[in-house]
Amino acid sequence: MNEENKDLIRTIKQNFTKLSKGQKLIAQFIMDNYDKAAFMTASKLGDKVGVSESTVVRFAGALGFDGYPKLQKSLQELIKTKLTTVQRVEMSQDYSSDFEVLNKILKSDIDNIRNTLEDINPKAFEDVIDKIASAKKIYIVGLRTSSAIADYLGFYLNLILDNVVLVNYGISDVFEQIIKVSEEDLVIGISFPRYSKKTYEILEFAKKQGATIVALTDSHISPIATLSDNTLLAKSNMASFVDSLVAPLSLINALIVALGMREKDKIKGYFDKLEHVWKDFNIYEEQA
Amino acid sequence: MNEENKDLIRTIKQNFTKLSKGQKLIAQFIMDNYDKAAFMTASKLGDKVGVSESTVVRFAGALGFDGYPKLQKSLQELIKTKLTTVQRVEMSQDYSSDFEVLNKILKSDIDNIRNTLEDINPKAFEDVIDKIASAKKIYIVGLRTSSAIADYLGFYLNLILDNVVLVNYGISDVFEQIIKVSEEDLVIGISFPRYSKKTYEILEFAKKQGATIVALTDSHISPIATLSDNTLLAKSNMASFVDSLVAPLSLINALIVALGMREKDKIKGYFDKLEHVWKDFNIYEEQA
Amino acid sequence: MNEENKDLIRTIKQNFTKLSKGQKLIAQFIMDNYDKAAFMTASKLGDKVGVSESTVVRFAGALGFDGYPKLQKSLQELIKTKLTTVQRVEMSQDYSSDFEVLNKILKSDIDNIRNTLEDINPKAFEDVIDKIASAKKIYIVGLRTSSAIADYLGFYLNLILDNVVLVNYGISDVFEQIIKVSEEDLVIGISFPRYSKKTYEILEFAKKQGATIVALTDSHISPIATLSDNTLLAKSNMASFVDSLVAPLSLINALIVALGMREKDKIKGYFDKLEHVWKDFNIYEEQA
Amino acid sequence: MNEENKDLIRTIKQNFTKLSKGQKLIAQFIMDNYDKAAFMTASKLGDKVGVSESTVVRFAGALGFDGYPKLQKSLQELIKTKLTTVQRVEMSQDYSSDFEVLNKILKSDIDNIRNTLEDINPKAFEDVIDKIASAKKIYIVGLRTSSAIADYLGFYLNLILDNVVLVNYGISDVFEQIIKVSEEDLVIGISFPRYSKKTYEILEFAKKQGATIVALTDSHISPIATLSDNTLLAKSNMASFVDSLVAPLSLINALIVALGMREKDKIKGYFDKLEHVWKDFNIYEEQA
Repeated sequence: MNEENKDLIRTIKQNFTKLSKGQKLIAQFIMDNYDKAAFMTASKLGDKVGVSESTVVRFAGALGFDGYPKLQKSLQELIKTKLTTVQRVEMSQDYSSDFEVLNKILKSDIDNIRNTLEDINPKAFEDVIDKIASAKKIYIVGLRTSSAIADYLGFYLNLILDNVVLVNYGISDVFEQIIKVSEEDLVIGISFPRYSKKTYEILEFAKKQGATIVALTDSHISPIATLSDNTLLAKSNMASFVDSLVAPLSLINALIVALGMREKDKIKGYFDKLEHVWKDFNIYEEQA
Repeated sequence: MNEENKDLIRTIKQNFTKLSKGQKLIAQFIMDNYDKAAFMTASKLGDKVGVSESTVVRFAGALGFDGYPKLQKSLQELIKTKLTTVQRVEMSQDYSSDFEVLNKILKSDIDNIRNTLEDINPKAFEDVIDKIASAKKIYIVGLRTSSAIADYLGFYLNLILDNVVLVNYGISDVFEQIIKVSEEDLVIGISFPRYSKKTYEILEFAKKQGATIVALTDSHISPIATLSDNTLLAKSNMASFVDSLVAPLSLINALIVALGMREKDKIKGYFDKLEHVWKDFNIYEEQA
Repeated sequence: MNEENKDLIRTIKQNFTKLSKGQKLIAQFIMDNYDKAAFMTASKLGDKVGVSESTVVRFAGALGFDGYPKLQKSLQELIKTKLTTVQRVEMSQDYSSDFEVLNKILKSDIDNIRNTLEDINPKAFEDVIDKIASAKKIYIVGLRTSSAIADYLGFYLNLILDNVVLVNYGISDVFEQIIKVSEEDLVIGISFPRYSKKTYEILEFAKKQGATIVALTDSHISPIATLSDNTLLAKSNMASFVDSLVAPLSLINALIVALGMREKDKIKGYFDKLEHVWKDFNIYEEQA
Repeated sequence: MNEENKDLIRTIKQNFTKLSKGQKLIAQFIMDNYDKAAFMTASKLGDKVGVSESTVVRFAGALGFDGYPKLQKSLQELIKTKLTTVQRVEMSQDYSSDFEVLNKILKSDIDNIRNTLEDINPKAFEDVIDKIASAKKIYIVGLRTSSAIADYLGFYLNLILDNVVLVNYGISDVFEQIIKVSEEDLVIGISFPRYSKKTYEILEFAKKQGATIVALTDSHISPIATLSDNTLLAKSNMASFVDSLVAPLSLINALIVALGMREKDKIKGYFDKLEHVWKDFNIYEEQA
């Protein structure tokens, strides 16, 4: 992140008290929704916040920008790699109580899922299901926090299909696990801010080998989206120091169920076998 | 699960075509919401579905129950351990398209979060934050699919605190990792249907050693809820063969942020150090 | 372990000071080599230690046994499940210095490898290589401390072959990972004292599905040896509270190299590709 | 590795048939023991192989070196990062049978342990035990194949001590796991050829934070040896495409037992508790 962008957030915070009431509303909206604000015209941003377009333009000036387009461009660069954790802790709102946090976070996650549903391309979703169903081998790649939801996706795809490889760290490096990838294979990459560099490198390698790439990410300008044949977007906004993987997880639920519905008879026979093993080896709590 | 309960679902499905239009509405509601229906009176269930109380009573009779209370009891037993995967695949609705699946699942997850927020006890949430902040050591226990969100919680608590142990499988058994637990420690158990037996056993062991137990689960009658000092409930309903960990993950986000807000200055200094390491070792994508 | 066996070790220790000089030599030999002593006649044991057969018989009497065969039988039962860790800590010799420990342990591991080499059945070793080379899928199962060497074997077999599954704990249970095993597959089980019950159960399950079983273990009477089509024995003796996996690891080295020699051209092409990836992504230290 | 070194092995192989009988003995010795040959004078190398010093000098000339010291220097550079896997597969001897492989590998591992014992510095071994016993926190770092023996060491140290952290990949990066390291802590690094770059970087980071560093490695000129306060050397030579971790594992056994002997009473009480848990939860096979 270049110095100018780091300064943007600092500038907003430093100038906050000096802003007019309307400008404060804009500042608050940008800090909570910088990824949306980055793509709004001055007029639309004004509408959203309930101030006039000229208030937005004056706000840009108050922060030292030579017009709103300059501010907007700065916002767009900002979201490319999102903020550092330190900036995000600084930006975090002050809450009056633990319960206010709870209320705010859960509502924010409801918005994330709702926006994901509104924005998704139904054709892309269907295409991805088709590709999973027809690939020779399916590799799932998600590192760092994204590994939590990659593991979950891998667990269920492994129950439904026979040809799933979950790429993760262990005694072997991630590259060794995907080195045999070929053009008949599908690689599902999962990457949310702050984007893991290694995930990008693995997908870049797989693409060079001719594999089909599906990106599960938060934006069409995220690093892995630039490599993918299909991109599924899920919102991960959170006005705090964590990104939320709630909407991505919900989207993964939908992928699993949609795939399962196509293989209904196959998985019934298979789950029947599993139920016997689970019972024989006492994996789950039984009813008294 | 005893035979009677297995029969309940089968009975509903087998008799479905013979039911009256109003009874079909009840049947559908129960199959989609058996965990709620299990605790509704005949009158309330009728209201919810839009039929009369006597239609509900006749519905119970049509399924062979000697009155509505018998049907209700059967439902209550059913949810104790939830359905087998085979039953759930059978119960799954047929969808007309992949997009209908997506739409249904994401809306269902929105409902899960909303219901979690409505039902949660603010005092319990605050208590849990207090206990995490004051425990000598914090153990996190979540196995099978719950391990995905336990890992996520462990990752962030380890960034904020110095005394967090994530209990999971590896070269050592889970019991070896928690054997030194004492009465000054806190154990956060994460367990959703189908409840892992091992998670219950670990928490039972920890309780015997005098540790404080927090249960993150879906119901006050879930196995680990019976062991806990505090219970945080999150909905995991999904009308398909997977349970949804979306609302539990959103609740975990709230736990992380609420805790982080109390330690704001400490984590700022700490993240500052991490940012330097991340930069030096190229962990994240940098802006071009 | 029944009470009689626990008493055997205690009895030897309690009576140690009262024993004659020759009897003390026998006692020491048994404590260091109970697994060998268990299968020696009184005459052979005497030879080994350098005392007469009648001294051995009197030794049995001094411990309260009605003849040497009773003592021998007690020893044989003892090694079935080996000693508890507490007994082994008690039995551990007292060493005069850290360096004496080092000297004793390394020499003991040299003996373990030498005895492994002397006792191994060359035909069984060759058979196992043949079976690995011709199986449809190869599953490797080793839990607890054996998981360390199972991981190592899995790492190298995955470099050489395309069809290797390392069964270990993660988000999915070990049974879920092997549930699709069939009669065309090979399962390599690795189990050393104290034998993991779960490893036995997995191999028993695989055998029922018709898979071929190879046991890598310490004795023909170990639990998994009773299930196997081929057994490769490696010594794991250590006169202390750990078992040694040194000779098993050396045997695994031999398996990897023997297999690699058969696939020499294939792995050369493959390593060539890996070297490029390792170089591109900076996995190894480069020469200055 | 620069071009000259890659050429050295190729040159030896290409010229092999043209060499005199005595020169072939030297060539074979160097290919099997290049790490030893690299530090021998022409005279000593001749003695070892059973040829005259002048034969050694002529051998250097036959390979195109301007004198033996140039050949020796080339060998010394070679071992810094050891050979690539491709070169090692090429260099691998041809064996007449699987059993010959077994025999060769196990004998080679016996030599590795024997040489480890001969060369070790007893004072360094004792120092390391002292440092482990007195450190505030002990971090264990071993990646790639070394992670197998690092896991094993971590498992046992965790049974004996309360303050052990095994640094390995998971949802968090390795750096995040060691970021709180301080000057009161001890970091045990395990690194064998081909040396992992990441292991070096982690130890370098820990050293900068003031931590004490113990290197478990194969040579005083290995990368991590240059960072360490104490170095324990174990041989990992193997005339094939794998390095052997057998002697390092034997040395780890010695570390564990020596430490355990100092804490005998503490671990007895602790194992007693574990035995009850193991029994209650059926971890090990019980005697029939």
